[in-house]
Amino acid sequence: MPATPHVEKHFLGSETVRDVVIGMSDGLTVPFALAAGLSAAVSSTRVIVTAGLAEIVAGAIAMGLGGYLAARTDQEHFESEERREAYEIAHMRKLELSEVRDIFAGYGLSGAPLETVVNAVASDEKRWVDFMMKFELGLEKPDPKRAPISAATIAASYFVGGLIPLLPYMLASDLKTALLVSIMCTGVALLVFGAVKGRLTGVNIVKSSLQTALVGGLAAGAAFYLASLFG
Amino acid sequence: MPATPHVEKHFLGSETVRDVVIGMSDGLTVPFALAAGLSAAVSSTRVIVTAGLAEIVAGAIAMGLGGYLAARTDQEHFESEERREAYEIAHMRKLELSEVRDIFAGYGLSGAPLETVVNAVASDEKRWVDFMMKFELGLEKPDPKRAPISAATIAASYFVGGLIPLLPYMLASDLKTALLVSIMCTGVALLVFGAVKGRLTGVNIVKSSLQTALVGGLAAGAAFYLASLFG
Repeated sequence: MPATPHVEKHFLGSETVRDVVIGMSDGLTVPFALAAGLSAAVSSTRVIVTAGLAEIVAGAIAMGLGGYLAARTDQEHFESEERREAYEIAHMRKLELSEVRDIFAGYGLSGAPLETVVNAVASDEKRWVDFMMKFELGLEKPDPKRAPISAATIAASYFVGGLIPLLPYMLASDLKTALLVSIMCTGVALLVFGAVKGRLTGVNIVKSSLQTALVGGLAAGAAFYLASLFG
Repeated sequence: MPATPHVEKHFLGSETVRDVVIGMSDGLTVPFALAAGLSAAVSSTRVIVTAGLAEIVAGAIAMGLGGYLAARTDQEHFESEERREAYEIAHMRKLELSEVRDIFAGYGLSGAPLETVVNAVASDEKRWVDFMMKFELGLEKPDPKRAPISAATIAASYFVGGLIPLLPYMLASDLKTALLVSIMCTGVALLVFGAVKGRLTGVNIVKSSLQTALVGGLAAGAAFYLASLFG
């Protein structure tokens, strides 16, 4: 299952930072939109807090455990493809040789230099399998130790992100104040989070900041409108 | 932002199927868990349906629009890395030549054949940049036309997936019946969906089916328990 986001080598943060970004991205948006939406339909902050907490815990488990299983599946998928390549190299040598040839021919090699490279890659079967995994299939070997840490980081970030829009509903005395404080706190959090995300991916910080806040605002606005139809 | 799931060439379904899987995976789980959780705390199906619909629309927008922006960012990230490689090839030719040399040396080439291959790759600057993007950075050129289609497919799948657990609450006359029918319908949907997902990724179908249902069950159970503390 190709559900694990592809890790780019030039990504300027660590893998942990990336997991925090993934979890917090949805954690800040969906619980915020749900709480804002519900405030158009119900009059009790208790219902909103209950729904919000139920959503946060469900979302954190779905993202964390779902991500863990996706990583495990990526691992199994990688191993089954690796076995297949090893089998093909052992039993369909000519076909695999021509695949290596095609890859390097695409970079302008031909004649004797091409054959030299093809023979060099094919001279060691283990290295040949590694080459096919990376350059034919574009698969990187997943790190089995990362999956549980990654899952826990994503789930915790979703949870923490989700608490930011919900806290005002837990603390404020009336619904209107809670909604306004939630919009302000989450708006600031989305702008800051978007800027950090932009910094980490090397794209324009202001643009990333505004886009991230826009997604949260649109989601909340749509949820508010829909819920108000039922309110 | 490396948030776009990495597409594997050996993935047995089309890219559209993959997007449906991503959207439906969360769409079946989170609204189901939210509705089940809320049924422990509130007595009105109207509140549950309102919260569920608000969550579905917020989640669909967050996943769809968030995925669209992530794909756009991947695109920009690729282009900025491409410009950087082109600059380095033009201005730090020796360094880049030694990087190409290192890549091929890793596959066992040395001496005159190594130099021949390095010179062949370096003979065309455009192709050289392409080579560095793929072999040094492991980056594939993103397809700009995919982003909006992918976003719409993920959002629609989240929405459709979320309606399955919610429909019973819209149609049933009492909350207890709605909860039971929702658990049964969503349980069957998760088992079927997990089996299809297992089939597409080439892993064990029964295992994938049970794991998918387990994630939904755990998320719903945790949400139910938490909401019952507030009910």
